[in-house]
Amino acid sequence: MLKTMLDNVRDKSPLIHNITNSVTANDCANILLAVGASPIMAEDEDEVEEVTSICDGLSMNLGTPGPRKIRAMLRAGRKACELGHPVLLDPVGAGISELRNQAVKDLLSQVSFSVIRGNLSEMRALLSGKGSERGVDAGQEFQEVDSREELAAFAKHLARELHTVVVISGTVDLVADSETAFAVYNGTSMMKKVTGCGCQLSSLMTAFITANQDDVLTAALAAVCFMGVCGETAAQRLKPGEGNATFRNYVIDAVCCMEAEDFEKQARFERL
Amino acid sequence: MLKTMLDNVRDKSPLIHNITNSVTANDCANILLAVGASPIMAEDEDEVEEVTSICDGLSMNLGTPGPRKIRAMLRAGRKACELGHPVLLDPVGAGISELRNQAVKDLLSQVSFSVIRGNLSEMRALLSGKGSERGVDAGQEFQEVDSREELAAFAKHLARELHTVVVISGTVDLVADSETAFAVYNGTSMMKKVTGCGCQLSSLMTAFITANQDDVLTAALAAVCFMGVCGETAAQRLKPGEGNATFRNYVIDAVCCMEAEDFEKQARFERL
Amino acid sequence: MLKTMLDNVRDKSPLIHNITNSVTANDCANILLAVGASPIMAEDEDEVEEVTSICDGLSMNLGTPGPRKIRAMLRAGRKACELGHPVLLDPVGAGISELRNQAVKDLLSQVSFSVIRGNLSEMRALLSGKGSERGVDAGQEFQEVDSREELAAFAKHLARELHTVVVISGTVDLVADSETAFAVYNGTSMMKKVTGCGCQLSSLMTAFITANQDDVLTAALAAVCFMGVCGETAAQRLKPGEGNATFRNYVIDAVCCMEAEDFEKQARFERL
Repeated sequence: MLKTMLDNVRDKSPLIHNITNSVTANDCANILLAVGASPIMAEDEDEVEEVTSICDGLSMNLGTPGPRKIRAMLRAGRKACELGHPVLLDPVGAGISELRNQAVKDLLSQVSFSVIRGNLSEMRALLSGKGSERGVDAGQEFQEVDSREELAAFAKHLARELHTVVVISGTVDLVADSETAFAVYNGTSMMKKVTGCGCQLSSLMTAFITANQDDVLTAALAAVCFMGVCGETAAQRLKPGEGNATFRNYVIDAVCCMEAEDFEKQARFERL
Repeated sequence: MLKTMLDNVRDKSPLIHNITNSVTANDCANILLAVGASPIMAEDEDEVEEVTSICDGLSMNLGTPGPRKIRAMLRAGRKACELGHPVLLDPVGAGISELRNQAVKDLLSQVSFSVIRGNLSEMRALLSGKGSERGVDAGQEFQEVDSREELAAFAKHLARELHTVVVISGTVDLVADSETAFAVYNGTSMMKKVTGCGCQLSSLMTAFITANQDDVLTAALAAVCFMGVCGETAAQRLKPGEGNATFRNYVIDAVCCMEAEDFEKQARFERL
Repeated sequence: MLKTMLDNVRDKSPLIHNITNSVTANDCANILLAVGASPIMAEDEDEVEEVTSICDGLSMNLGTPGPRKIRAMLRAGRKACELGHPVLLDPVGAGISELRNQAVKDLLSQVSFSVIRGNLSEMRALLSGKGSERGVDAGQEFQEVDSREELAAFAKHLARELHTVVVISGTVDLVADSETAFAVYNGTSMMKKVTGCGCQLSSLMTAFITANQDDVLTAALAAVCFMGVCGETAAQRLKPGEGNATFRNYVIDAVCCMEAEDFEKQARFERL
């Protein structure tokens, strides 16, 4: 099942429009090339509609935001929806500033997302920001979450509220729509030592959901497992004296070299 | 002949002003350092004229454009011309948006370029955009190009129309002025798996034409061969499990370590 | 002494707000992760005050400047001062444009810096730009500096004039406040072949001064020695055929893997 998702990415080689941040754009482009997809990076409001029109899917990342780029995201997002393209949101830093909170609110109200992927605090900020002030009303009940079951319920609730597949990254990753939630156990703590591993996963995932539009939930699940398996492969390659810079290269190398069958064998997930 | 071109870059260590994109700027700077040149990256319209004035050559790349950066390109380009500096244009994505098409038109009408380097579709967009709407009138006759001879004729025609040396990157690369065209057979398909190999070549080439201003055509040819030879060297270093991230490093490493004589021996090109 | 400075960074894991340039932002983030600190990159004037408020220290770098980013620096800098956060300035390219000279003047007059780190020409531009036009009046007397003693006197004079710890990077690095100056002999010439080694040092140093606020001078000294020792370790790892791209990774790897005791043993500095 997961193998097919990866095969489809490599066979179809989707062209992905990325509106991302200046810190990790290079890695996002290279991981898309590594997996067999093609990246275009373009973020000015004067051209994003044209650019997204020639692409197959759209990945939007809220890192290093500014008013002009946020307007570009809104325009690209609406256009992609109009064209029926899959659209992914990575709400980087949601909750840390009014600029980002307002951007998230506008994006949620104007764009229909196929997937939203973030960490737990970003996802909570998203839920709390929906239609209200910066308050945490809606999110408050989840602040003490500690069990997998509660997280699964939270993920499904979030998916229901936001009308999208959600991916919550953490030590255990959660992938859910309103009905079904998966937990993914792949990955390694070393990934936290590389800036933008999350951004890379979001771009990669956009390729997966674009090449597998008839099953977005499984495609998102496959992308999470794939990134995790590649992280594990990279960690196994590390020799003494090699740190996070070499590890960063090894992760993208693994995405490039991973056989689909090996990937499927190493994926570790369960339906909750 | 080619060896001398590289020797001159290393001896003169030209200071190159780059107005490039946020995705590959780091690689462009590091490849210039690798070859023995020096990079300055500055792209705000409020300072580019002063910056380009203290440099020896100017490289402009249309990736991730915006109105402010395009104005900076126009100002830097005019200033560099005034000072007699070599100026290279890499029209990334020409043809994909009105923003880029208009930028290309303005740049072509206000700046005199020493070299324009792009892929075939970008070069066609450039020709078609010259002085007319987005149409493909002028370019139409080249749309079915498939033989090397036709490409050579197209390259020379393009050089004549644009009053510049042109470099068309592809499986075979073409380097031409209005009278003479060369085909370059160096390189490896792995280079397509690294974002910004073209951007890197453009920055590198600006160093070559700046250090060899009395023979821009040969300098551009040398840069294309050099990048290709470095790509081949990088590909030969690849071990199992190493993918595009490691390859990216190996290319720049090869630029750093390549002996001029080894380069000359491995260059494969012919006059068409 | 130096060992403790590094231990404190790793123990406290300070969150560092970086307003830096688009060329080296990725490396700045990864070197902070390597040393055990956490980076946030945010540079829009609409959010920097909120962002810096949740951080522990602020690193500002004048590379690839623009009016909007400069306004963001001023706002973030004032906010960080208000909150008592350590603030570091890396005046990249000070002296090469009016935009940068004016930015430096505004920053110096509105923000109280804990450390300013740059190369000799940037530091001279800073001094000359203080409260006057682009002239070199104040700096002129130091233009012929060639002995270590004169540099030490210049460094202390600079620290006195600017009311801050200063770090002057060069073949020998100088670290000084108004009373005391140190010379650091660590490092390798290979570091000049990697773009942004200085930017990386500035981000790294911000983590050191943030985790060691009671002794900023020693913390800055420790950061300089640490970066130099890591550069030496990286150079020793280089094998034939490995150039500046691999070296770039090795430096960050060394930051990641270096034992505090080994660092202390290899640090080479003296009080002047």
